[in-house]
Amino acid sequence: MSTSEKIAKDARRAGNILKTISNENRSKVLYKIHDELKAHANAIQEANKLDLQTARETGLADSLVKRLDLFKGDKFDTMLQGIKDVAELPDPVGKVNFAREIDEHLTLYQVTAPVGVLLVIFESRPEVIANITALAIKSGNAGILKGGKESINTFREMARIIDGTIAQNESQTGVPVGSVQLIETREDVSDLLSQDEYIDLVVPRGSNALVKNIKSSTKIPVLGHADGICSVYLDEDADLEKAKRIVLDAKTNYPAGCNAMETLLINPKLNNWCEVLESLARKGGVTLHATTDVKQAYLKSLEKSGHLDEELESKLVDVDESKDFDGEFLSLDCAVAFVSSTQEAIQHINLHSSKHTDCIVTENTPNAELFLKGVDSAGVYWNASTRFADGFRYGFGTEVGISTSKIHARGPVGLDGLVSYQYQLRGNGQVASDYQGAGGSRAFVHKDLDVSHVSL
Amino acid sequence: MSTSEKIAKDARRAGNILKTISNENRSKVLYKIHDELKAHANAIQEANKLDLQTARETGLADSLVKRLDLFKGDKFDTMLQGIKDVAELPDPVGKVNFAREIDEHLTLYQVTAPVGVLLVIFESRPEVIANITALAIKSGNAGILKGGKESINTFREMARIIDGTIAQNESQTGVPVGSVQLIETREDVSDLLSQDEYIDLVVPRGSNALVKNIKSSTKIPVLGHADGICSVYLDEDADLEKAKRIVLDAKTNYPAGCNAMETLLINPKLNNWCEVLESLARKGGVTLHATTDVKQAYLKSLEKSGHLDEELESKLVDVDESKDFDGEFLSLDCAVAFVSSTQEAIQHINLHSSKHTDCIVTENTPNAELFLKGVDSAGVYWNASTRFADGFRYGFGTEVGISTSKIHARGPVGLDGLVSYQYQLRGNGQVASDYQGAGGSRAFVHKDLDVSHVSL
Repeated sequence: MSTSEKIAKDARRAGNILKTISNENRSKVLYKIHDELKAHANAIQEANKLDLQTARETGLADSLVKRLDLFKGDKFDTMLQGIKDVAELPDPVGKVNFAREIDEHLTLYQVTAPVGVLLVIFESRPEVIANITALAIKSGNAGILKGGKESINTFREMARIIDGTIAQNESQTGVPVGSVQLIETREDVSDLLSQDEYIDLVVPRGSNALVKNIKSSTKIPVLGHADGICSVYLDEDADLEKAKRIVLDAKTNYPAGCNAMETLLINPKLNNWCEVLESLARKGGVTLHATTDVKQAYLKSLEKSGHLDEELESKLVDVDESKDFDGEFLSLDCAVAFVSSTQEAIQHINLHSSKHTDCIVTENTPNAELFLKGVDSAGVYWNASTRFADGFRYGFGTEVGISTSKIHARGPVGLDGLVSYQYQLRGNGQVASDYQGAGGSRAFVHKDLDVSHVSL
Repeated sequence: MSTSEKIAKDARRAGNILKTISNENRSKVLYKIHDELKAHANAIQEANKLDLQTARETGLADSLVKRLDLFKGDKFDTMLQGIKDVAELPDPVGKVNFAREIDEHLTLYQVTAPVGVLLVIFESRPEVIANITALAIKSGNAGILKGGKESINTFREMARIIDGTIAQNESQTGVPVGSVQLIETREDVSDLLSQDEYIDLVVPRGSNALVKNIKSSTKIPVLGHADGICSVYLDEDADLEKAKRIVLDAKTNYPAGCNAMETLLINPKLNNWCEVLESLARKGGVTLHATTDVKQAYLKSLEKSGHLDEELESKLVDVDESKDFDGEFLSLDCAVAFVSSTQEAIQHINLHSSKHTDCIVTENTPNAELFLKGVDSAGVYWNASTRFADGFRYGFGTEVGISTSKIHARGPVGLDGLVSYQYQLRGNGQVASDYQGAGGSRAFVHKDLDVSHVSL
């Protein structure tokens, strides 16, 4: 058995026990982990300093060094608070989604259950260790955590504390050793990614390159997103002030975010649409990568209004159609094109977007409804900035990630994304052969029960 | 562009239109298809006869020839009725799962939406063409249907009629040509299975070998099951009469079914457990593949009661532990082993079962609850036969398949398994930068709305 197979099998075994542990005990372990990490803050900080030193010595980019620093500002305290916040969330396991009387004393329940085993792969941020440990245990899933080599010392110290805490409390809480396995960099990621018999879900936390690489090298479902290519469509019947506000926010509030606008589609029948581009360039400092027809019409209008100046001219460049509609700028840049109808906007988005979040700005209800139905993305917005695509803003309590997959969890994913369901059938000795369709004469009742009155 | 890529891209394009078509129009097309297939019954029967003749000439197994025969008994009429039944089901698309007020005039809806593009691969049964066409169109998904070479003539004739009907009614219903593409055998399955950019879900309909082969050769999620290795555990506190009835039904009602019991786990502390085996062998004609300890204890008890005879002896053989707990018999055979506790039964099942359906027979509530929580299968049953694992028995109206995957749809899958969801955010020009966490001061409201009062 390879090391990776052993790790995966151990996780499966631990997960099978963990899924039977009460919410109270799962949460209790999290409080203990919180306390122990807090008590050992000094040792963790020493380890973290080692990682930071190595990073600086090896010439790691400043932005990465910053991510590595667990004690920058209130990051460590926020991490600790996060563990408690997750512990206090309602139990995601054992919720009854629906209940149906199949026959007298034979009742079917669809009940939420942990997915099983999570493989979480992340890069430099060491606080992810605590975050994922909390999410995994709370949701009854075993977690295999694989960190980047940059944070190896911090990782090792936190792993030591978390492992020890789980072991020390196992007899009291039942949460088994192996519920969270913290894997150092020597194990090959690709070996773990091939353990599809034991691992149920991969959660990559890191750069686009990391996610892309993982998605292309595993058969295990991946919860995450490589790209966030979000579009805003300004309809013929858009309110110009709303359009300006939404476009400016979607592009400039946090340009590096996956929910930032990357493409602006304009229906040229919208009166004074040029003002939106002008505001984006002038107020937002955004460089517009425009198609030839947009460029010509925009320049003509600016000349006519007398607004054309060097600033606006410098913020207008030719779009590279071979790539600008199919990738993220993650900067104060935006691709701009004309579309002649809502239908054409939908087609453009379904062809180019990454199925993350796309928005229509319009006062025309039929156009909005068509857009909401026709766009094949996790988030479809009407008159609201794409920047709302976020677990906190959706009110999910905590965010596991944002998924651009078409099945299981889509969009911002809370703890719910780490559970699936099982069907429980509770009977009294019933057999199929008594019923119609299997040789008998009894008919099924199939009466739905009000789940708000069901408790298991 | 390869032929497969073109097919997949065309399906994506059709799916993007289909998802905007009203339930009324999607259903209307199904009635039209029903009428046209009915009107052309003779031509279809002629084509079917050709396939049957070829099958007999090439020496296809009788059971496969039987499956190929679309006009055996009332099969054709049942197929036609099935199309209407699906048309009459409630719309699976556009259901509001939850609604939340994010702020005044800014509301988040989780709404069901088609998965997108389905690739359905099936073997000899030609009625699957009509069945899947109905399910795909009803659920707003584009379908690529790939049949086996045995039914090529039937397939081609039905495809001609279905294609023609969709085309003829496109201007009236909006359901686009390309919504259902019926692919003949010349296209390579593996080429289609590699179109993961365009195809969202693979639904194999056929033998275990087909499903296994597909699962191992695609990165696209597969809705289905290769094996149904179902276990029944007789707890120390089982009611003996219930145990006998359930075990007999689970094994013998339809031994070739994926929900038939393949493994019987017995807690030897259960009084008179031997009677269950005796009944299974004598009444059910089941050959017991028993572990050494079960065998010895069973024989000893039979001798003591004077029940031992040639019939029972002939129905008792040694289990092959290297494979009998990890595969399906699909016949009147059953593996039998002792386990000393509910916990041990859970461990056995989680190690050996195919995560299909497993049952505990007991009057002991804590043991039952532990089993229902601990077993990691799509169906976990208490005092009911595993044979209930079926879309019709669950009251799903129609069954797309039975899934043993851990995410998306699990267990018997109705039309719901062909939809996913999207988040709709309906606003009034709101931008993130006005709110806390993104630079502003406004707080979120996050008030859940009663979905029964929500209509979009």
